Amino acid sequence: MKALADTELTIIGTGLMGTSLAMALRGKVAALHGVDANAESRELAAPSFDTMAPQANFASSDVIALATPVQTILRLLDHVRLNAHPGTLIFDLGSAKRPIVAAMDRLPDTLLAVGGHPMCGKETSGPSSADGTIYRGCMFALCPTERSTPETLVFMEALVGACASRPIVMSAEQHDRAVASISHLPYLLSAGLVATVSRSPDDAPWMLASSGFRDTSRLAASDVTMMGDTVLSNRDAVLDAIHLFTAQLAEIELALRSGDEIHLKNLLDDARQMRLWWANRQEKEL
Amino acid sequence: MKALADTELTIIGTGLMGTSLAMALRGKVAALHGVDANAESRELAAPSFDTMAPQANFASSDVIALATPVQTILRLLDHVRLNAHPGTLIFDLGSAKRPIVAAMDRLPDTLLAVGGHPMCGKETSGPSSADGTIYRGCMFALCPTERSTPETLVFMEALVGACASRPIVMSAEQHDRAVASISHLPYLLSAGLVATVSRSPDDAPWMLASSGFRDTSRLAASDVTMMGDTVLSNRDAVLDAIHLFTAQLAEIELALRSGDEIHLKNLLDDARQMRLWWANRQEKEL
Repeated sequence: MKALADTELTIIGTGLMGTSLAMALRGKVAALHGVDANAESRELAAPSFDTMAPQANFASSDVIALATPVQTILRLLDHVRLNAHPGTLIFDLGSAKRPIVAAMDRLPDTLLAVGGHPMCGKETSGPSSADGTIYRGCMFALCPTERSTPETLVFMEALVGACASRPIVMSAEQHDRAVASISHLPYLLSAGLVATVSRSPDDAPWMLASSGFRDTSRLAASDVTMMGDTVLSNRDAVLDAIHLFTAQLAEIELALRSGDEIHLKNLLDDARQMRLWWANRQEKEL
Repeated sequence: MKALADTELTIIGTGLMGTSLAMALRGKVAALHGVDANAESRELAAPSFDTMAPQANFASSDVIALATPVQTILRLLDHVRLNAHPGTLIFDLGSAKRPIVAAMDRLPDTLLAVGGHPMCGKETSGPSSADGTIYRGCMFALCPTERSTPETLVFMEALVGACASRPIVMSAEQHDRAVASISHLPYLLSAGLVATVSRSPDDAPWMLASSGFRDTSRLAASDVTMMGDTVLSNRDAVLDAIHLFTAQLAEIELALRSGDEIHLKNLLDDARQMRLWWANRQEKEL
């Protein structure tokens, strides 16, 4: 594999994540080629790329990043399979990894492929929201495929490091279970919370809602096309997470209903201690 | 009633909310008396008050603010009933209003009383976290009681305005239903979410958790004594909110399980639109 600095990188999908990736890698690769089927996205994202086109030029792509929703990544992999030249490395930024890694496993063995997922984003979308700094300090999951070699992982770790993100290698299964609980479930809880408040017969909840509601409901404002696609792509793990959550909430509800103050406070304190432990570890790591 | 500037205010409970209230009212009342049974709280809070004592001096209290958890407020009202001199105005900062307003209704008709609830706070507690600016711009619910007169509401609106909070008058029932959905439910969802992630067989979720999880789980770090007391004090409304939420989550789950992408995205988009509408209104009001 070429060194990162000598690599021509094609990013397919110049929305928030793809354009932000280009911004984060500016000056660290030999060329940044943007590809997007949408004319408005191309126009808005063009300043962050060296070239911009509606179709990829596979001849000048050493590495191809797929930065679209998961279902589109799966379709793009079929296109890449037919057109990429031998030795091309393909990675993606999709938020569910099992279906993508399974599709990457089936690529011709002349191609290289790694599943990727940076744990950053915004609740706004599109190239006008792009910001190279969103990658700074974020964990970037790398999921090996049957088309991964030690060199491809070393290359990807260099690319991730160049974005100031922190690489973490894990299996697609481990990744998908993890993001179901810390990303997809919180999104659905946030949407369910807003739906609950929307059922109020009066305006009082919306008048009184303040910082607690703001933070807990923030994810409900996420892009629905992207997040709907994401939870459908990770359906089994998300359903498992919902079940586990429902059981936890039912235990809290039972303690509340029966007025069992000690048990209720124990449950709440267990959650509090874990949240404090995590926040403390996060602070140390940053 | 005296004007605010001529009022001697006794704040019973010098934790986060009581001490922050003293800071917010500094220089706007004739005297600020702090009362707390806990010696350490007294010592930490003392600089924010003119006097500090373990017991209230009712002779020098024109207005008494009860700034403790709800169950303690109910006990304090019995004490106040026996000791406050005629004409004293009592208000509270408790987060459930029906039990408190019901207890205030039963005070002798020589006393005045209004239920209060400022929609601000922090996930930390105690006088060392106190900060007068937390009251700035926050909604401050005022719930009339049978011991409220037009003058007491005018006085309370002046006091709330002096903290730079925004008074909103509503019934205790309306308040309790509203906070169940926008404050107590989000807290329990947050705790349930952390409990769910805690069931993971590996460290991957904690490693990958980022801003979405951070915001959605923030309330789980709240003070358990205070929040446990709060949800128990507002049990019926909280149980109703949990039921409503469970139904919303079940509808999302069913759409996801059956792969009904259109229905799923419609549900998620309804929540998104409501969240954007609320955020937009909040911005305009601030």
